[in-house]
Amino acid sequence: MKGVIGIDVGGTKIAFGAVSPAGDIILRRTIATHPDDSFDQGIARLSIGVEALLGDVGWDVKEIGGIGIGCPGPVDTEKGVILSVYTLPGWSNRAFAAPMSERFAGTPVRLENDANAALLGEAFAGAAKGKKSAVMLTLGTGVGGAVLIDGKIHVGAGGAHPELGHIPALVDGPECPCGIRGCYEIIASGPAIAEAGAAVGLTGSEEVFTAAAEGHEGAQEIIARVAKATETAVWTILHTFLPDILLFGGGIADGHWPLFEAAARKSLAAATLARDEPVTIARATLGNDAGVVGAASLVL
Amino acid sequence: MKGVIGIDVGGTKIAFGAVSPAGDIILRRTIATHPDDSFDQGIARLSIGVEALLGDVGWDVKEIGGIGIGCPGPVDTEKGVILSVYTLPGWSNRAFAAPMSERFAGTPVRLENDANAALLGEAFAGAAKGKKSAVMLTLGTGVGGAVLIDGKIHVGAGGAHPELGHIPALVDGPECPCGIRGCYEIIASGPAIAEAGAAVGLTGSEEVFTAAAEGHEGAQEIIARVAKATETAVWTILHTFLPDILLFGGGIADGHWPLFEAAARKSLAAATLARDEPVTIARATLGNDAGVVGAASLVL
Repeated sequence: MKGVIGIDVGGTKIAFGAVSPAGDIILRRTIATHPDDSFDQGIARLSIGVEALLGDVGWDVKEIGGIGIGCPGPVDTEKGVILSVYTLPGWSNRAFAAPMSERFAGTPVRLENDANAALLGEAFAGAAKGKKSAVMLTLGTGVGGAVLIDGKIHVGAGGAHPELGHIPALVDGPECPCGIRGCYEIIASGPAIAEAGAAVGLTGSEEVFTAAAEGHEGAQEIIARVAKATETAVWTILHTFLPDILLFGGGIADGHWPLFEAAARKSLAAATLARDEPVTIARATLGNDAGVVGAASLVL
Repeated sequence: MKGVIGIDVGGTKIAFGAVSPAGDIILRRTIATHPDDSFDQGIARLSIGVEALLGDVGWDVKEIGGIGIGCPGPVDTEKGVILSVYTLPGWSNRAFAAPMSERFAGTPVRLENDANAALLGEAFAGAAKGKKSAVMLTLGTGVGGAVLIDGKIHVGAGGAHPELGHIPALVDGPECPCGIRGCYEIIASGPAIAEAGAAVGLTGSEEVFTAAAEGHEGAQEIIARVAKATETAVWTILHTFLPDILLFGGGIADGHWPLFEAAARKSLAAATLARDEPVTIARATLGNDAGVVGAASLVL
């Protein structure tokens, strides 16, 4: 086997990677996502992308170990079905793995949710390599999460995944559609920070971080709430999953790592019941590649 | 195999059960725990208990499938070592399974933490029977918990177990030695309810529940906080483990089940992200037998 193909299907673009058996991306391709594509058009576009990448890297389809695909929303990993993707409405509840496999000489095709794929990528070749259990919090447009236990993605009741972004984090926070006030996402996602900033005359989450660093009191209060909510979310993870490693990823956490690291370490230091445990706090290292590498790891 | 022996080692008493392959307790024996016993005395007392039970039930040691033991504190299940038991100081860090096995003709002896054993009992023959994933909250002198994922007890970093009693539950609650204010245990354990009751002239947790039912305003406030903290703890479990079943056990939850059931169902109904998922909320059904049955299930 020369390698595998990993695909990360996002809301705006689809990233393809030719991935070595060690988890290195040898060659990349990116195309735009066309959310209005029919299912057949989507399959066709994905297939053309895979064919082009195979041609560029010089691999025959019989030389690859398979195709792994990470995509938004819940998936049935056993049946290879995307269950419900509001960003790609035409793709919902369709068997995806089987027709892709047929187009590529029966090569194995496996699906996974994108947040889970990112964690699998970090576990295969990134910050969580060699760890048996890991929790990853991804802070960006929303706050997502994924959980690895005994080397396997944790799946909840009915095949749903955990919603770590909606851990109770700040009792007096804004109301979230999830059903409570002050969940982690409604405090610490990019749009949440931006919305809180708008109330004190700032535009966008980055301006809030910058203004806080420059002494703007309203901005500092917002950032202090993000830190406090992070402490609580981390505390909860330490007293529930108690993973070998807790990873932070996504633009918000990556761009302001010292803030998130300090909050997480403060919680870990205060947790008397967990203090002797070897819990690592770290930043995800694969960035945008995590999804492609994790998707690839499904067939490696 | 006629059956197995299950032993539940508690702080005040040790319960022995001769357990059928189906998980029914055929015969019981109980002796007092002597916390000051040396390790050798402890092994001897346990062995005498097992021998007496075998004699009473009429099983030869060669006819049993093994001996399972649940005990307080962390255990190394692979090595059969009790790691640290402050209620039984002489027993800490001692290999326990091997000498017991030797005394009983090499029959398998397995250890498990008592909270985990109780959940295993419920999963084997109680309220969680047939469920692949389960979380159990036990409310009594403290608030403990155990987690079953894919039919296996979830173990955290360094072999430690989760501390579900210390989930953040009420931000303005009293300080807990765990390191935060307002964790679930510091609001909802028996002693916590009793302490809050003492501040309004009531004695003991049961008097608080009774006074609340009779219209005592201070007591009603305390019980309302217990309900609110339960809602938050349940919310957290739904958004982290998202188990097939969430069980409540222990004297406090068992004695006041309608309160805990209502709080848990309120959280489940409000959780928009989990509402279509088949999460069962239930009361543990084996009561004090759960530990013995769960210990037995280790060797069944």
